[in-house]
Amino acid sequence: MSAAAKSGHPTSAMSAADLAAVLVDGYLRFDFDDPKSPANDRLVFSKGHASTLLYAIYRAAGVVSEEDILEYRTLGSMLEGHPTPAIPWVDVATGSLGQGLPIGVGMALAAKHLERLPSRVWVLCGDSEMAEGSMWEAFEHAAHFGLDNLTAIIDVNRLGQRGETMVGWDLETYVARAEAFGWSAIALDGHDLDAIDAALAQATSTSGRPTVLVARTTKGKGVAAVENVNGYHGKPLDDADAAIAELGGVTDIRIEVAKPDAAVSEEPARGTLELPRYELGTEVATRKAYGDALAALGAARPDVVALDGEVSNSTFAETFAKAHPERYFEMYIAEQQLVAAAVGLQAVGWRPFASTFAAFLSRAYDFVRMAAISRATFSLCGSHAGVSIGEDGPSQMALEDIASLRAIHGSTVLHPCDANQTAKLVAAMAETEGISYLRTLRPATPVLYSPDEEFAIGGCRVLRSSESDEVTLIGAGITVHEALKAADVLAQEDIAARVIDLYSIKPIDGETLRVAAEATAGRLVTVEDHWPEGGVGDAVLAALAEMDEPPHLIKLAVRELPKSGKPEELLARAGIDAEHIAAAARQLVAKSAQTA
Amino acid sequence: MSAAAKSGHPTSAMSAADLAAVLVDGYLRFDFDDPKSPANDRLVFSKGHASTLLYAIYRAAGVVSEEDILEYRTLGSMLEGHPTPAIPWVDVATGSLGQGLPIGVGMALAAKHLERLPSRVWVLCGDSEMAEGSMWEAFEHAAHFGLDNLTAIIDVNRLGQRGETMVGWDLETYVARAEAFGWSAIALDGHDLDAIDAALAQATSTSGRPTVLVARTTKGKGVAAVENVNGYHGKPLDDADAAIAELGGVTDIRIEVAKPDAAVSEEPARGTLELPRYELGTEVATRKAYGDALAALGAARPDVVALDGEVSNSTFAETFAKAHPERYFEMYIAEQQLVAAAVGLQAVGWRPFASTFAAFLSRAYDFVRMAAISRATFSLCGSHAGVSIGEDGPSQMALEDIASLRAIHGSTVLHPCDANQTAKLVAAMAETEGISYLRTLRPATPVLYSPDEEFAIGGCRVLRSSESDEVTLIGAGITVHEALKAADVLAQEDIAARVIDLYSIKPIDGETLRVAAEATAGRLVTVEDHWPEGGVGDAVLAALAEMDEPPHLIKLAVRELPKSGKPEELLARAGIDAEHIAAAARQLVAKSAQTA
Repeated sequence: MSAAAKSGHPTSAMSAADLAAVLVDGYLRFDFDDPKSPANDRLVFSKGHASTLLYAIYRAAGVVSEEDILEYRTLGSMLEGHPTPAIPWVDVATGSLGQGLPIGVGMALAAKHLERLPSRVWVLCGDSEMAEGSMWEAFEHAAHFGLDNLTAIIDVNRLGQRGETMVGWDLETYVARAEAFGWSAIALDGHDLDAIDAALAQATSTSGRPTVLVARTTKGKGVAAVENVNGYHGKPLDDADAAIAELGGVTDIRIEVAKPDAAVSEEPARGTLELPRYELGTEVATRKAYGDALAALGAARPDVVALDGEVSNSTFAETFAKAHPERYFEMYIAEQQLVAAAVGLQAVGWRPFASTFAAFLSRAYDFVRMAAISRATFSLCGSHAGVSIGEDGPSQMALEDIASLRAIHGSTVLHPCDANQTAKLVAAMAETEGISYLRTLRPATPVLYSPDEEFAIGGCRVLRSSESDEVTLIGAGITVHEALKAADVLAQEDIAARVIDLYSIKPIDGETLRVAAEATAGRLVTVEDHWPEGGVGDAVLAALAEMDEPPHLIKLAVRELPKSGKPEELLARAGIDAEHIAAAARQLVAKSAQTA
Repeated sequence: MSAAAKSGHPTSAMSAADLAAVLVDGYLRFDFDDPKSPANDRLVFSKGHASTLLYAIYRAAGVVSEEDILEYRTLGSMLEGHPTPAIPWVDVATGSLGQGLPIGVGMALAAKHLERLPSRVWVLCGDSEMAEGSMWEAFEHAAHFGLDNLTAIIDVNRLGQRGETMVGWDLETYVARAEAFGWSAIALDGHDLDAIDAALAQATSTSGRPTVLVARTTKGKGVAAVENVNGYHGKPLDDADAAIAELGGVTDIRIEVAKPDAAVSEEPARGTLELPRYELGTEVATRKAYGDALAALGAARPDVVALDGEVSNSTFAETFAKAHPERYFEMYIAEQQLVAAAVGLQAVGWRPFASTFAAFLSRAYDFVRMAAISRATFSLCGSHAGVSIGEDGPSQMALEDIASLRAIHGSTVLHPCDANQTAKLVAAMAETEGISYLRTLRPATPVLYSPDEEFAIGGCRVLRSSESDEVTLIGAGITVHEALKAADVLAQEDIAARVIDLYSIKPIDGETLRVAAEATAGRLVTVEDHWPEGGVGDAVLAALAEMDEPPHLIKLAVRELPKSGKPEELLARAGIDAEHIAAAARQLVAKSAQTA
C-alpha cells in the first residue's frame, strides 16, 4: 500500500502486525455489516499512522478489495493516510497522537456504566505517544471507573519518528507506571503469538480494572533492511517487492472476525421536554440556566449524558448530576480526557454535554479539532467567559474561545445573554449535528426574554428597532445588556439605535444583519467581551463582506490584558461598556454627518 | 485578604502554609531586590489560586505592606486573584492548573543544562491538578533530563473545588507514580515542620533526579469551621476575625529570605548574523529555511535555544540541533511540555524557538494562552500547514492555527511563502516581544525573493502592481503562488490584478491594503489554506472595516473537510487554487461592470 502511494508508515504497521493478527483472529467481536451496533467491540488505532495495518485487517476480513487497498492515500479513497469515519468501520479519526486511548475510555464508560453490555474496547497505542499527558489522564480515569472492558496494547517498537523514545525497550518502566495508575499490566514479546494470545486472554478475564499489554516489538519487523533501524519512520520501503518476498511472498489470508451476540435493548422512549422558565426582570446567570436546562433535557432524552471537569458547581452541570447521577461523569481536572470521553460516548450513540470554564476548554483544543474530523456530534459549555468574571483575573477569563471554536469545522457557536434564551439554546443544541459550543456568563444578568420566545440556531434577535434608527449596536452575552444601556443614553440625545442580540455567532444571521446595516446607513458597532480577533466583530464583517455597500464598522473588544477587579470596572477598562458603545455610535453618526 | 476582597481561596492557602513557611524560611534563596538574577531560586505556585499564601510570603519578607495586602483582588493592585508577572517576583502567570510544574521543568533545564548554576526550582502543586496529563509530561521530562535541581511539593489536601480527588489521601499512590516516572518521592505530614524540613533537606541532597514531597495536608488547616470540610473551596471564611483569633491572633512575622551567592557570568557576546541565502527560481520548502535560519541565528545569538516535539526532521529544527546540540532540547511527543519549557526558559532569560506540526500546537493552546498572561517572549514554528501537505490527510493539516494564534494577546502571526523571506522573518522574530508564530509549508515552493530583500514584521509585499489594476489578490504562504498564477491567467484576459503577499497576518499592514483597495475599486480576493473563520480574509476585513468605503471582499478558504490526496488536487478541491482565484476576481470585476 505504502509503496503504491509512495508515502505512509509501513514500519510502524509492521511492528504491530502480530499483535493485531492475534487480536482480530481470536478476540475482536465485530459485525462489519452492522458497524454501529453497540454490541460490537470497538477497535481504535490510537497510533493512526499505522493505518496500513488497519486496512490490512479490513482486507483480511474481506470487506475491502485488492483494488481498494491500492488506492490508499489517493483522492477519493476512503483509505486515507490516517483513519477517519469516512470508513464505515472507523468510529473516530486518529492521527494526532495520544487521543485514541482517552476516546476509548469514553467508549468503555458507555459499555460498562450506561449500556452494561459485554462489549470490549481495544486500543492499539504507539510507545512514542506514551509521552503525551493525555495518555496518563486516560490511564487514571480508566482505573478510576473500573473499566475492565478496556484493553490497551502498547506497541513498544522503541523508535519514534526521529529516534528512540525516552523509555526505549524498558518494558518494566511502562508496567510500573501502568500499575501505579491502577491497571493490570503484562509485559510480553509482541512477536510471540502464544504470548499475545495468553495476554489477551488474561485481559478478558481480569475484572475490576483495565489491562495493558506492554509488547516489545521491532519496528519494520520482518524486513531486514528496515528492522529496528532508525530513519525509516513515515517512509515507504525502498524495495517493496523484495520486502514482500522476504515476508513470505504474496498471500491472500482471510480471517473470520467473530460477531458479537446481538441482544441490544430497545432505545428508551423520549419524554416531553419541560424547560425551566425564568421571570422577566429577575436576574439569573446564564450558567445556572444551562444547568437547569440540561437537567430538563436529561429528563426528556434518555440518551443525554453530561460530563464536567471538576467545576460542576461553577458551570452548574451539578444540576444535571443531581437529577441524573447515572448519566453524569465527573472527569476531574483533566480537560483533554473530558472532551475525549465526550467523543467516545457520542461515537457509540450517546449525546454528551461537556462543561468547564470556557478558558480551560483551550486545554482540549486539539481534541475538539480532531473531533470535527471524527464527524462527532456533541456539545461543549464554557462558563466564566470574558472580563465579566471579575476578581479571579485573566487566567480564568476566556477571551479567545469564540475565535478558536469558530475555527472548528462545522461548529456552532452560541452566546446567550439571558436565562430563557439559554434554556432554548440548550434544547436546540441537542438537535444539532456537529460540535456545538455554548458560552455562558458568571454574573447574573437580567431576564430579557419571555420563556415562550423561541430562539433558533442561526438567528439573532432585534431588541430595539425603529424607522429612524441611525446606528446598529450588536452584542452577545454580557454586552447585549451594555448595548441596551447605550441605546437608552443615545435615545436621550435623539440618536435612535437598533440593538441586535447576536446570540448565534456561528452560524450567523447574515440577512438580519444586512437589513440592519442598510437601515442604519451602514453604521455598525459590535461589542464583545473577547479579544478583537476572530470574535463577534469579525464574524459580522465576514457575514457582510459581499454586500453591495459594505458597512462601516467599529469593533469594540478587549484590547489590553485584563486584571482583577469588579466586573463593571473591567468592562469599562476594556472599553466595552455602555459608555464606550455610545461613544462609538456617536462617532459613526458624526462622521457621516460630516461627510454629508 | 480574602475577607477584605470578599473572594479568593483561603482554605487552599491554609493547607500549604506550613510547607511554604519551612521552604521560605530555610531553603529558598531569592534576592527580592534583584528578582531576575539567574542565581535566584525560582518559586512557582502551580496552584495559583493559593495566591494569598504567596502574598503572605511577600508580606513576611517585608516587600509588600499591610495596605498592599488588603487591596488584594482590587483593580490596580498587583496582587491579583492569581499571580501574574505584574508582580516583580513572579516569573509566570498561573491559575490554569497543571502548568506550573511543566514551566518549572523549563526553568530547571536552563539552570542545569545551560547555565550550570546551583539555583533550584521549587514548585508548589495542588493535588487536584495531578489529574492533568501535563503534570505527567513534566514528571517524565524532569526525570529524563536528570533535573535534581527541581523539587515539586504536592499539597495533598484531598479536596478539590467540588469534592474529593480520585486519589484522596492515598499518598502511596502518588509516591508509586512519581517513582515509576523516575523521581525520588517522600511521603510526609505536611503540617509537621520537622518532617518538612527533613524532606526539603533530602530534596536538596538528592542528585541525578528530581524530588517530590507528597505532603498530606488539611484543607482550611487551623480553623475548625472549615478544616477538611467540603464546600469551602474558593470562598472567603465566614468569620475572618474569629478565624484569625483561632489561628493565634494578629501577628506580624518577619522572615529573612536567604540570598543566593551571586557569581553570575557575563552574557556571551553576540556575533554577526549570516542568514542562509537561496537562489531565485529554485524550489525550497519554507520549513527547511526555518531550520537553516534558526541554526544561523543560534550562531549569532548565544541566548537562542530550540525545542521540538519529536518531529525535528520534519520541522527542520534538527538543523539547529546539529549545529548547536548543547542548546537544543528534544521534548518528544508532549506538546504541552514543549511550550511550557519554552515559557520556563524565557522566564530565566533565554530566547526559545519551539516547533512541531502546526496542527499539534493546538495541543498546547492553553499554555500559549497563559504564556501571553505571563508576558512571555518566545517563538513558535508550526510546519505542515493546510491542505498543501497532501497525502497524510486532515489530522495532520493545520487549518485553525491562524485563527487561534491571532486570538492570543499581543501575538505576532507570520506566514512566509518563500525561503529567503522565511529566513528574514526568523531573524525578525528573534527581536520581537511577545509570542511570535511562524507558519511553514511542507512542499517546496519557488524562491520569489532575492536574499537581499528585507521583510519587516507588520509589512506585506506587493508582488504585482500597475496603474490599471482592477482587482487585488491577497494570499499568504502557498496561496501567494496560486495568486501569482491567477494573475497570469487574468492578464491574458486583460484583467490587471494586483498581488499582495500578506506574510505578516498580525500585525497587518493596513495602509498597503487600504491603498490597494482604493486603487482597485474596493475589489479584493483573499485566499488562504485555512478555514474561513479568523484567518487571512477576516484579518483583512478587520483591517479595512473603518475605511470610508469598505471593500467588497471575496474570501476563498477551505470550507469542506479535506481528504488525503496530492497537494495540487487538494488545493483545487478546496477552491483555493489559481483557477478559483481567477474566477473570484472575474466575478468581482463583472459585478462592478454590471453595476456601472
